[in-house]
Amino acid sequence: MSPAPLFRRVALIGIGLIGSSLARVMLREGDLAGEIVASARTEATLATVMRLGIAHRVEADPARAVEGADLVILGAPVGAYAGIMEKIHKHLAPGAILSDVGSTKQSVVRDVGPLVPAGVHFVPAHPIAGTEHSGPEAGFAELFQGRWCILTPPPGTDEAAVEKLATLWRRAGSNVETMEPTHHDRVLAITSHLPHLIAWTIVGTAADLAEDTKQQVLKFSASGFRDFTRIAASDPVMWRDIFLNNREAVLEMVQRFAEDLSVLQRAIRWGEGDVLMEKFSRGRAIRRGVIDAKQA
Amino acid sequence: MSPAPLFRRVALIGIGLIGSSLARVMLREGDLAGEIVASARTEATLATVMRLGIAHRVEADPARAVEGADLVILGAPVGAYAGIMEKIHKHLAPGAILSDVGSTKQSVVRDVGPLVPAGVHFVPAHPIAGTEHSGPEAGFAELFQGRWCILTPPPGTDEAAVEKLATLWRRAGSNVETMEPTHHDRVLAITSHLPHLIAWTIVGTAADLAEDTKQQVLKFSASGFRDFTRIAASDPVMWRDIFLNNREAVLEMVQRFAEDLSVLQRAIRWGEGDVLMEKFSRGRAIRRGVIDAKQA
Repeated sequence: MSPAPLFRRVALIGIGLIGSSLARVMLREGDLAGEIVASARTEATLATVMRLGIAHRVEADPARAVEGADLVILGAPVGAYAGIMEKIHKHLAPGAILSDVGSTKQSVVRDVGPLVPAGVHFVPAHPIAGTEHSGPEAGFAELFQGRWCILTPPPGTDEAAVEKLATLWRRAGSNVETMEPTHHDRVLAITSHLPHLIAWTIVGTAADLAEDTKQQVLKFSASGFRDFTRIAASDPVMWRDIFLNNREAVLEMVQRFAEDLSVLQRAIRWGEGDVLMEKFSRGRAIRRGVIDAKQA
Repeated sequence: MSPAPLFRRVALIGIGLIGSSLARVMLREGDLAGEIVASARTEATLATVMRLGIAHRVEADPARAVEGADLVILGAPVGAYAGIMEKIHKHLAPGAILSDVGSTKQSVVRDVGPLVPAGVHFVPAHPIAGTEHSGPEAGFAELFQGRWCILTPPPGTDEAAVEKLATLWRRAGSNVETMEPTHHDRVLAITSHLPHLIAWTIVGTAADLAEDTKQQVLKFSASGFRDFTRIAASDPVMWRDIFLNNREAVLEMVQRFAEDLSVLQRAIRWGEGDVLMEKFSRGRAIRRGVIDAKQA
């Protein structure tokens, strides 16, 4: 008889790039989940999940999906969490761990926290990994390898539950760190949310140029622009929800960024090469830091 | 007896990432250059070039390097062109082609054009290729494969000379296109110069955060930020010169970008999800265009 898996039944509520990658990890490892149940908003996604063979069972109704699960992971856009919780909270099994993979964490505490039943362990999580592709077909088991996963358990959360979830993410190849939701949202505002907002902005600026220039922008995009188009190809719904749910931190970072851009703009206008040199010279040190942090 | 090479002697004045990659192409192909002569500002660079074996001869004095060359390529930062021309213009061989690889083209016409002797064919060029690394050690022969090279010959330039230079770049693997310098500078302002300026700006914004947050920015950079750090690791001197020499076009694009960013900023502040959705949805179409243009 093989030993009991880490979780008897894992319910994935929303299964896109992240959820399907985690499902692939669990299938690969064998001893992490006895059964994987997936729920998604559309029949098409459920059919794709079955065709890919990345869940043992699919359920259109998230309430049915969570029944008897000892781990429930919300993987929908963060703006949909409140609605999902209305449907599932009465069906969560006592002792279950309720987690998620959303990119904002204060909003998750706000929207999910009040509906978590007594006896259910609420451990929000954010795996810092992704690609510009979305949907269950885009997932792959190596996505989390060498990346970070941030957990933001509320004060007083059962430590065994936090450790059990951390084990799952470590087995997926991630380094796990625990953090306050407010701090998470601030760090992600600068490392992820602002870069995405900027990428969409510049892609829009280019798209508004005259048609002949636009064609040439695509042709000559290898000179920097193409890296922004990759980021700007990310899922619009997921990202709308992120910006609406991390408003304060994103607006502060946008404001700082706009001020800093004005300084460079002014230096270019007035031909202040020394200002440009000083600002540009910081770039390589930061790049070195990213390489040293093994995130290049 | 092997057939005569395309150029008898090629002089590379300034040999960094681009120049050294082109030298490697010429050495690989065998029939493009009979002799490669390299000149650089520092003894260290000249020694590196000899050690790498990517030139037949090095000359500290650019005037000596261009003597007898039927192709001279300026590969220094564009702000150094005027000074180089002062030194070399009397030594250029009659019938030679004078070209460059700089990222701005109006400034090259302005700084180089007046000093081009009669009988020398002036064909400015810009290979749209690069990495975040610089210097002769960073070069590789495949850099130009599948990329574009833009030529901006002044009106009345000898067509045979333009075609001969185009042949060199095609043999390097590039697609060649001819363009007005003003149009080149405008297209590159949005595809290359603005993306670099933005990358340096956000890297600076992050660097100014409190030290503990900064460490976490590096750690969690896989969520978008790291792509900007790669761009911001580009050579500061080269880029200072680009911004100072494409001022009008860059300032116009920065202004457009800042306006577009304000629209998204306002939409986030007022919770206008539909505005965000509409702007974000354009991203995938543009990304598709980049992929279709084989520049992804």
